[in-house]
Amino acid sequence: MARFIKKQKHEIGVAPDDLFFRGEQKVKEVELKIIDFDSNNLEEISITDIDDAVKYYTKDSVTWFNIDGLHNTQIVADIGTKFELESLILSDVMNTEARPKVQEYDNGIFISIKMLRQDSEDDEILVENLSIVFNKSILISFQERTGDVFEPVRDRIRKQKRRIVNSGPDYLAFALLDIVIDNYIYSISVLGQEVEELEDRLLTNPTQSVMEDIIFYKQELNFLRKNIKPAKEMILAFSKIESEFIKKSTHIHIKELMDNINHASELTDSYREILSDQLNIYHTTISTKLNDIIKFLTIFSVIFIPLTFIAGIYGTNFDFLPELHYKYSYFIMLGVMLVIAILMLFYFKKRKWF
Amino acid sequence: MARFIKKQKHEIGVAPDDLFFRGEQKVKEVELKIIDFDSNNLEEISITDIDDAVKYYTKDSVTWFNIDGLHNTQIVADIGTKFELESLILSDVMNTEARPKVQEYDNGIFISIKMLRQDSEDDEILVENLSIVFNKSILISFQERTGDVFEPVRDRIRKQKRRIVNSGPDYLAFALLDIVIDNYIYSISVLGQEVEELEDRLLTNPTQSVMEDIIFYKQELNFLRKNIKPAKEMILAFSKIESEFIKKSTHIHIKELMDNINHASELTDSYREILSDQLNIYHTTISTKLNDIIKFLTIFSVIFIPLTFIAGIYGTNFDFLPELHYKYSYFIMLGVMLVIAILMLFYFKKRKWF
Amino acid sequence: MARFIKKQKHEIGVAPDDLFFRGEQKVKEVELKIIDFDSNNLEEISITDIDDAVKYYTKDSVTWFNIDGLHNTQIVADIGTKFELESLILSDVMNTEARPKVQEYDNGIFISIKMLRQDSEDDEILVENLSIVFNKSILISFQERTGDVFEPVRDRIRKQKRRIVNSGPDYLAFALLDIVIDNYIYSISVLGQEVEELEDRLLTNPTQSVMEDIIFYKQELNFLRKNIKPAKEMILAFSKIESEFIKKSTHIHIKELMDNINHASELTDSYREILSDQLNIYHTTISTKLNDIIKFLTIFSVIFIPLTFIAGIYGTNFDFLPELHYKYSYFIMLGVMLVIAILMLFYFKKRKWF
Amino acid sequence: MARFIKKQKHEIGVAPDDLFFRGEQKVKEVELKIIDFDSNNLEEISITDIDDAVKYYTKDSVTWFNIDGLHNTQIVADIGTKFELESLILSDVMNTEARPKVQEYDNGIFISIKMLRQDSEDDEILVENLSIVFNKSILISFQERTGDVFEPVRDRIRKQKRRIVNSGPDYLAFALLDIVIDNYIYSISVLGQEVEELEDRLLTNPTQSVMEDIIFYKQELNFLRKNIKPAKEMILAFSKIESEFIKKSTHIHIKELMDNINHASELTDSYREILSDQLNIYHTTISTKLNDIIKFLTIFSVIFIPLTFIAGIYGTNFDFLPELHYKYSYFIMLGVMLVIAILMLFYFKKRKWF
Amino acid sequence: MARFIKKQKHEIGVAPDDLFFRGEQKVKEVELKIIDFDSNNLEEISITDIDDAVKYYTKDSVTWFNIDGLHNTQIVADIGTKFELESLILSDVMNTEARPKVQEYDNGIFISIKMLRQDSEDDEILVENLSIVFNKSILISFQERTGDVFEPVRDRIRKQKRRIVNSGPDYLAFALLDIVIDNYIYSISVLGQEVEELEDRLLTNPTQSVMEDIIFYKQELNFLRKNIKPAKEMILAFSKIESEFIKKSTHIHIKELMDNINHASELTDSYREILSDQLNIYHTTISTKLNDIIKFLTIFSVIFIPLTFIAGIYGTNFDFLPELHYKYSYFIMLGVMLVIAILMLFYFKKRKWF
Repeated sequence: MARFIKKQKHEIGVAPDDLFFRGEQKVKEVELKIIDFDSNNLEEISITDIDDAVKYYTKDSVTWFNIDGLHNTQIVADIGTKFELESLILSDVMNTEARPKVQEYDNGIFISIKMLRQDSEDDEILVENLSIVFNKSILISFQERTGDVFEPVRDRIRKQKRRIVNSGPDYLAFALLDIVIDNYIYSISVLGQEVEELEDRLLTNPTQSVMEDIIFYKQELNFLRKNIKPAKEMILAFSKIESEFIKKSTHIHIKELMDNINHASELTDSYREILSDQLNIYHTTISTKLNDIIKFLTIFSVIFIPLTFIAGIYGTNFDFLPELHYKYSYFIMLGVMLVIAILMLFYFKKRKWF
Repeated sequence: MARFIKKQKHEIGVAPDDLFFRGEQKVKEVELKIIDFDSNNLEEISITDIDDAVKYYTKDSVTWFNIDGLHNTQIVADIGTKFELESLILSDVMNTEARPKVQEYDNGIFISIKMLRQDSEDDEILVENLSIVFNKSILISFQERTGDVFEPVRDRIRKQKRRIVNSGPDYLAFALLDIVIDNYIYSISVLGQEVEELEDRLLTNPTQSVMEDIIFYKQELNFLRKNIKPAKEMILAFSKIESEFIKKSTHIHIKELMDNINHASELTDSYREILSDQLNIYHTTISTKLNDIIKFLTIFSVIFIPLTFIAGIYGTNFDFLPELHYKYSYFIMLGVMLVIAILMLFYFKKRKWF
Repeated sequence: MARFIKKQKHEIGVAPDDLFFRGEQKVKEVELKIIDFDSNNLEEISITDIDDAVKYYTKDSVTWFNIDGLHNTQIVADIGTKFELESLILSDVMNTEARPKVQEYDNGIFISIKMLRQDSEDDEILVENLSIVFNKSILISFQERTGDVFEPVRDRIRKQKRRIVNSGPDYLAFALLDIVIDNYIYSISVLGQEVEELEDRLLTNPTQSVMEDIIFYKQELNFLRKNIKPAKEMILAFSKIESEFIKKSTHIHIKELMDNINHASELTDSYREILSDQLNIYHTTISTKLNDIIKFLTIFSVIFIPLTFIAGIYGTNFDFLPELHYKYSYFIMLGVMLVIAILMLFYFKKRKWF
Repeated sequence: MARFIKKQKHEIGVAPDDLFFRGEQKVKEVELKIIDFDSNNLEEISITDIDDAVKYYTKDSVTWFNIDGLHNTQIVADIGTKFELESLILSDVMNTEARPKVQEYDNGIFISIKMLRQDSEDDEILVENLSIVFNKSILISFQERTGDVFEPVRDRIRKQKRRIVNSGPDYLAFALLDIVIDNYIYSISVLGQEVEELEDRLLTNPTQSVMEDIIFYKQELNFLRKNIKPAKEMILAFSKIESEFIKKSTHIHIKELMDNINHASELTDSYREILSDQLNIYHTTISTKLNDIIKFLTIFSVIFIPLTFIAGIYGTNFDFLPELHYKYSYFIMLGVMLVIAILMLFYFKKRKWF
Repeated sequence: MARFIKKQKHEIGVAPDDLFFRGEQKVKEVELKIIDFDSNNLEEISITDIDDAVKYYTKDSVTWFNIDGLHNTQIVADIGTKFELESLILSDVMNTEARPKVQEYDNGIFISIKMLRQDSEDDEILVENLSIVFNKSILISFQERTGDVFEPVRDRIRKQKRRIVNSGPDYLAFALLDIVIDNYIYSISVLGQEVEELEDRLLTNPTQSVMEDIIFYKQELNFLRKNIKPAKEMILAFSKIESEFIKKSTHIHIKELMDNINHASELTDSYREILSDQLNIYHTTISTKLNDIIKFLTIFSVIFIPLTFIAGIYGTNFDFLPELHYKYSYFIMLGVMLVIAILMLFYFKKRKWF
């Protein structure tokens, strides 16, 4: 969680259209993947020279430019020039620390959202900014890192799935956002499963470390929620845009995004409630255990108190202490002690103290 | 609760109109029950071959097709073809893990909602997705499991109840949703009664297991609430649809659905508050009990402390210890000890420590 | 509170216009009181035969039919027929367990609300459903129980108070609702006074029973709030209805209802806060008391610990233990013990432990 | 706080235009102060006979009638007749227990709000209802008590301040409400200073009485908040009224009222948070202190336990107990005891128990 | 935090257009910096005589007057006269304790907002009111203190950055507000880093002082939040103003302000959650530690209790006590004691008490 907050390089007073990359460099080389398709044809290439990209810039087919890596300001500026993007869009693209947003510009729609991915190696959640710009025939997506999150969409295009190849960049944008939100739900589910597995440890061995894990998962969920909440607002804003760049038939799919992100948000809330219940169980279990110990031990001590007192009495050295001189005094004393102990146990039992 | 979350098979990147069944297979054979009725006639059959269904597809009478079982993608696709349903509706039907929703399509209205049923055998709440598609003369309902929840509606049709046989599929849809929400209220009531019965155990025998039951019911109520909340949103959206498929006279009934689901939601909240009060009582009772034990035992110990000290004094072996040699020293010591004990008891009583 | 929830006889799948009484029978005989008045005349009778009622059904004067008792479905159905009420209104009247609501029908406005009354004998709050149907010249009120809650309104009519006899049934409906809400405020005030009296017991004698009373009043307030909240919604809906049956001049009074129910709701909230403060005080007082005991007793024990140890030393039977043989050893030992005790007391005092 | 709630004399079923004074009599004699002014002239008198008032009732100048004392129903009725006020306005004026409200009538605007004043003598907050009625040339203000809260406004009129003497009764109403809200802020500030002074006592001497003070201030703030919240709603409603009686230029001032009452409300909330933080500190300090005592004392006891045990061993009377007969046994025993005590202290230190 | 609240000099009953400075004097001399620029020219001077300012008052170029220091009422009044500002604007400027607000006047737009700055020397957050008035060609900014917060904007103007020199005062106002909000985010980040560093101390050495720091940061964050919340409202209101003074192209930037302040608000909330988690950890760690001590020590005591009792038995002086006279009694007793101690340890281990 700290990660996210710390990497904040907030430059005070930078002009809104200055190209200034606020994130960390996450890849070595900026890479550009192009898929150009219509209902009949499909062309797919991967280039590093931006100049080669422009020839795919045709109005007839849908062209999806995917750019991995944002640290090279010059290349992003070049892309802006080639594709005639407004300077404000470019600075939005570079500002990877901003809140998710959707913005309608004259020559296209800009969308940004945080992507989450459970990193398979380090078992931590990676956050990355995704920016999407699209108009009627082109969609440009900017990722911070090379990744294969969008492979399912590419596959669907390759397999010439009816709906995606017949639709425009707006539907493609929906498909990308859909994957991002599916990844939210996946991240929550993974976390959720770990949260549920906590429950066993909680009942068998409630140590301080369980408590720390609960706090840890609580922070992770807060982190997720902090990303989901503005994404929700963004998608709501997206669903309300009425623009020539979004076909009417796409609105039904954006509504579906809304449903999915709501689902993600409700899952998060429900795991938060589970965690807070677990914290509750933890506290009760711990205190029940301490109570048990104290109860047992106190009862134990109390039984010996009068017995030790009696022994003390007969340990005194008075000249005249008649009981000391009877023959069976010692055994009578032991017997009386036993009776006292038993009576006390009965009394405690009756008052349900153990 | 875990059940619901775990069965989540969220496939990332599936196209929205792919037919992909996300639930578990809950019945062996897909079954199709048909009721065809108007104000005068009633025909009721049960078939397994979809082809036989189409002949009931007439615009004059109201026909209700009820399909139990969704795992067979082919059959659902066939139903789609026969009844000319959009592919998006079909994928909505199959996606039994989605949030409740209502969607107006060109050729009908799609509604999905979670059905709850208290399973009489296992004493657990079963969740199941119900999808309803209706237009002006047909209503198709998709259930995951064969069940008799809708028998009361069938009975009303069979008995030729005036309102239901004179109304269209929109009213039939209302009647089905009404039963679903009635089942919500029933489930809450059953749970609520168990919650109220907790109160006795709480006062007579507040063990750790009562605490665990409280947490359990809290989770069950959270689970119910998680289903009721989106259902409420869905019914609100339903009440706002203005469509040729919903007659004006049906709106008053949809408003009633709204009232019922609000009632369910308020019941849930009120049981949640009872549970949180019970948790409060549990904690106080437990701590009161521990306090009682500690108080009693500490007082007990304290009374013996000075007495044992005095016995210790006269257990010392000093050559010159005058008291040891007086004749009644021993009895005087016992008397002094008694007086000390009584005085301490008085003091504790005065300070209201017991 | 349980009372209210338990009497729930929720029949699943009943048609909305089936006449089915969901409450308990609360009176033996259905009784019908009629007041017929205009600015000049007043007639007031009490009948049991519904047929006699119809002759008062004139458009010129305002007629108020008050029916006590709803268990006899036939009589309610008769009333429906005589007064040409829609079947949906009748089933609303019978459904005494439903949420408060207001519904505009073609031939009148239907209002239902829960009435509360502090029962003078049993000191418990009685809940009862009140349904009101009115059009331009008639108001019919349905109560579950014979009662005199509406006597003040009858008195005002009898005394020919200017505003009430010059207004129509809409103003009469306001007057009835006004009394219902006044009773809410009265119930809260009674409860509130008891809550405030708790405070004394809390400070003088904070036993477990005070805690149970606090929980009890909390539940009672929750119960009240559960009735007030939907009533508030209902009155808000009422204030928004634009109907021929509600004169413009009545709207100012409905706004006043709104103010009153808001006042009731704020009173409830304020008592809830007082209760939660009291719970806070209870917990601190209890724990302060326990702390006092433990502190005192532990200090007491600790002073004797080294003293008893010293006595133990001189109780040993070593052949060579020089102190035993000095003449004043015993008195020196006693003196040393006293000094130790006093020093410890000083130390504890200095550290402010008592 | 109780004060406010207890004085509630809620009469059930009173007609809305009955003149019925619900408060307590707070002054002996009803007093009427009149200020009549326009941009050039100023006349200021104080009368007790209402008949004398009417002659100031001219349309050209602005006339402010201020009435102190409401218990005399007849006089208020007279005022109503003289100034041609609707009977509903009069009953609003008398109903000093009602929620703050603003109501547009045909012949004027009615405003009521609670006035707070820190009583300099008794150090308690006095609550009083202020009602204001104004039309285009007259403003009548009704106070329950004679007071000088409005002196600053009178002073500004006397000094012929440009804005107030050039404006109508609407601006005068704003000026009065402004003073009322300024008094809210003043009351909160006074309370707030006391709350902040609590902090010292909290750190130096956290006794039960500090806790009770915190609860007390919490209730006082709740009381303030209960008055501010409906006042906020009222001023919001006031700012939305579009009436001939409110000049457009006055709207900017009403917006300022809104800002001020929001400021008051935020101050209240911020002091509530401070109080809840203080409660938190109180609990931790108290429990830290108890922990210290218990920790110290338990450690102390534990060190003596094995020592006393050893002394006990050598206090036994066995015939054959070799150690008793060695010459330096006693001193060796004392030495061993010292070593044990020191080792235990080291161990506790190492585990950071003190 | 107290600082802010205490400096409140709320004068009751002051007329809204009285010039009355409510803050503290924060600079010695009122200073006036002027930047006059258009897309080609730039003039920058610093004066103390207001009369010199007016000549820059031209409609062609954008002129930014920045005034540091507000305590001299006369100078502010002069500025008002020279620039033909309404008296209400001037009193708004002087009222530095008011809530942030935006107000559209006939001859310009008035904005006020609190500026925060982390003071590098004293390590405390300074609060200061910033007022901005602008029309189509002039922007006047009023600060309470001389400072260099706006240097980045001046730099951008000096460097003739395209967007800022081509835009009007509305864009300049945006740029200033942007810096204010950037400072909010910076302050939160600084605080946030300190909060995160708390975590280490929390785990290694959770003393009372950590607790006090947590409370301190909580209050600091509350203080920040109290400033951010009304700023958020103000910017929302600003974004909704439709005025001739705000160009359409500026709206996109105001929306960005909205995003930034939302980001600040979410950061605050997220640190508040971290703090409340830390408080949770603190309490558990503390209580875990106490539990450990009590558990260890109680177990320790309990083992010695029966041993001391046995020694006491054989310390009695009975004439007839057979065990005392056997040769190996003493060693058998020691052996039995050892066995008892070991058995008890096993038992405690088995019950997982240590």
